[in-house]
Amino acid sequence: MSKRTAFVVAGGDVDAEDLALIDPERDWVVAADGGALTLLDAGIIPHLVVGDFDTVGEHFAAQLAARGIPIRKLPAAKAETDTHYAAREALRQNPDEVIILGALGGSRFDHTLANLGLLEWLDEQGVQGILYHRSNRIRLVSGPGEAVLAESKFSFVSLIPVTAAAEGITTVGMLYPLRGETLLRGMTRGISNEIVGREGKIIIEKGKCLLVESRD
Amino acid sequence: MSKRTAFVVAGGDVDAEDLALIDPERDWVVAADGGALTLLDAGIIPHLVVGDFDTVGEHFAAQLAARGIPIRKLPAAKAETDTHYAAREALRQNPDEVIILGALGGSRFDHTLANLGLLEWLDEQGVQGILYHRSNRIRLVSGPGEAVLAESKFSFVSLIPVTAAAEGITTVGMLYPLRGETLLRGMTRGISNEIVGREGKIIIEKGKCLLVESRD
Repeated sequence: MSKRTAFVVAGGDVDAEDLALIDPERDWVVAADGGALTLLDAGIIPHLVVGDFDTVGEHFAAQLAARGIPIRKLPAAKAETDTHYAAREALRQNPDEVIILGALGGSRFDHTLANLGLLEWLDEQGVQGILYHRSNRIRLVSGPGEAVLAESKFSFVSLIPVTAAAEGITTVGMLYPLRGETLLRGMTRGISNEIVGREGKIIIEKGKCLLVESRD
Repeated sequence: MSKRTAFVVAGGDVDAEDLALIDPERDWVVAADGGALTLLDAGIIPHLVVGDFDTVGEHFAAQLAARGIPIRKLPAAKAETDTHYAAREALRQNPDEVIILGALGGSRFDHTLANLGLLEWLDEQGVQGILYHRSNRIRLVSGPGEAVLAESKFSFVSLIPVTAAAEGITTVGMLYPLRGETLLRGMTRGISNEIVGREGKIIIEKGKCLLVESRD
């Protein structure tokens, strides 16, 4: 049985290749504010659009409503971002995974960091979050746990600790093997590993890491 | 007395406005790998270039040497990134602050995250690190401590916890005031505050936050 995927499309940069991940027949899609423009430009009708519409304007909100697309207007002054709110809505669909597009590459890096934080928040809700952007696929790996790295377009694999330390890290099928080792936040040791076999694996005993698969 | 500033120029995206921060007469400048090209294109001669030269090539390394620019060739397989190595070299100059350019905006987001981590590493070494990129200025604020927000081109101020919690956060001169409050990593509450007076201030009692000043 295939995974039930909910997509969150935020207002940052989205590539055609990112959008091609969406199967409009099968996946549930929520847009956060400017992300709605990206989707409609690509001919994808979101199931819901949330936002304060500060970016796209009231006029656009009215257009969405006229097309029968459900919108939820949020106040500009609120305790979380539009994208966070959209991720909450995605969770209500009980998906196996939430894929976030448009999370990186906008002009404001605070939004990028907030979106990365959502991977940890989703993990705490018991759901796998994945963030795609052009040359990068980012997940959170939480110990005790593991992540499988299938053959893909991404050459590099990097581990970036989110907690002060990420302990008991073992890699399988990687160029620079780790064997039950500790990575410390702020150090750059986990950067630029590479898969050597058909499939790699990362095992982590304790702590949390961002797992970034990337290419030049 | 003005601050002694050491610049690290990494291989990511660098704007002319970012480069204008460098005073070649006064500041010490180290380039990490491809960052050397950025500097030379702008007519700035770095004091040192470090890297495995995987990006810019051996030929370029030879050119630098011919121009009398000190280079330190690092192995490709090493326990830290070129930029981290460059930041170590910057610290040897005993600067008051280390400003990192070209830390964001490259194609590989693992490098971006590693560069952000260097702000915490620098803080642990007792030196203020600042990362500039186009519409963003990013610092780490560590408790107990505070950060002053002078009037600037940046409209938005966001706090993103690096530790699981950042406690006792108080803001002065901000649109959405915080009064001794706790921010949790993964939540997006600290995003998009704004300075309302001539100067703002962030006070933090315990934990660490990234402080991002940004504009649209």
